[in-house]
Amino acid sequence: MKWIAFLLVAVAAVATVIANSAPASGHADEEAAQVFVTKIPTGYRDWKLVSVAHEEGDLNDIRAILGNDAAVKAYREGYLPFPEGAIIGRIAWSYVASEENDKIFGRRQSFVPGPPTASYLQFMVKDSTKYAATGGWGFAQFDKNGKPADEALLKTCFPCHEAIKARDFVFTRYTR
Amino acid sequence: MKWIAFLLVAVAAVATVIANSAPASGHADEEAAQVFVTKIPTGYRDWKLVSVAHEEGDLNDIRAILGNDAAVKAYREGYLPFPEGAIIGRIAWSYVASEENDKIFGRRQSFVPGPPTASYLQFMVKDSTKYAATGGWGFAQFDKNGKPADEALLKTCFPCHEAIKARDFVFTRYTR
Repeated sequence: MKWIAFLLVAVAAVATVIANSAPASGHADEEAAQVFVTKIPTGYRDWKLVSVAHEEGDLNDIRAILGNDAAVKAYREGYLPFPEGAIIGRIAWSYVASEENDKIFGRRQSFVPGPPTASYLQFMVKDSTKYAATGGWGFAQFDKNGKPADEALLKTCFPCHEAIKARDFVFTRYTR
Repeated sequence: MKWIAFLLVAVAAVATVIANSAPASGHADEEAAQVFVTKIPTGYRDWKLVSVAHEEGDLNDIRAILGNDAAVKAYREGYLPFPEGAIIGRIAWSYVASEENDKIFGRRQSFVPGPPTASYLQFMVKDSTKYAATGGWGFAQFDKNGKPADEALLKTCFPCHEAIKARDFVFTRYTR
């Protein structure tokens, strides 16, 4: 039986090498090599908090940025680049005044999340091989029904994130 | 040995009854019965996200509201009152424009957490016995150095939270 086990391991190893080298060798054209995340990462709503933000203008949202354990560990320990498997998630809700709170406080003061925005969920998934063409990050966006954004939109992610290359293409800083 | 075990259980039961009834019977004056949380709950920065908000005016903060497992379970399943042991935490940072992000976006748009505010950390801890005088919630506030707020300030928490009694004195709604 020993030689069969050895053979299986050898075949698996060769298959892995072929699989991992295929994307790089198969696409000389960077544009063609862009691949995106198509599934909402499991359990993201349970992840730890990275930070919060408010975006004005067209976005007009209030947002939370969460990270899976690999992402949060790197953030907290302050190392870059983010490790393989790190995922950063961003939830955006429309930015609305809380009439309920303001009434109690006696003045217009409190702004809270309203319904999900059109770009409700966004994710960056670190996989240096699969997403080599976009800084090792796979980008994703889903609306409130879980529908992924089309590729034309997702292709606009990396050109903007490229400006923050010094922080491994990640805008959000961890907030203590 | 059996009767010794029984005796111990009986003594413990009586002691518990005395301990639990002491605060209620000992303080006819509600003001005097107010007790507060004096220690920062362990591991709060790892808790799950409840929601986010921006408070204008004097507060001028951007904040995240987190909950321990007991609090988040109640929030998600939509039951009230919150169970014993539930803790809701609020982290507030000063509200600042992100020059870094705005430069890349080409417009003033992005507001992010700055340094901790004076009321950096706030907690509500559910213990219906210990905090009977304040709706079953113990209130707490700590600055960035972990220094608790003085009692005069903490006494202002409940009179405001009392207005939201219908939701077990909790302002923040869980945001999906």
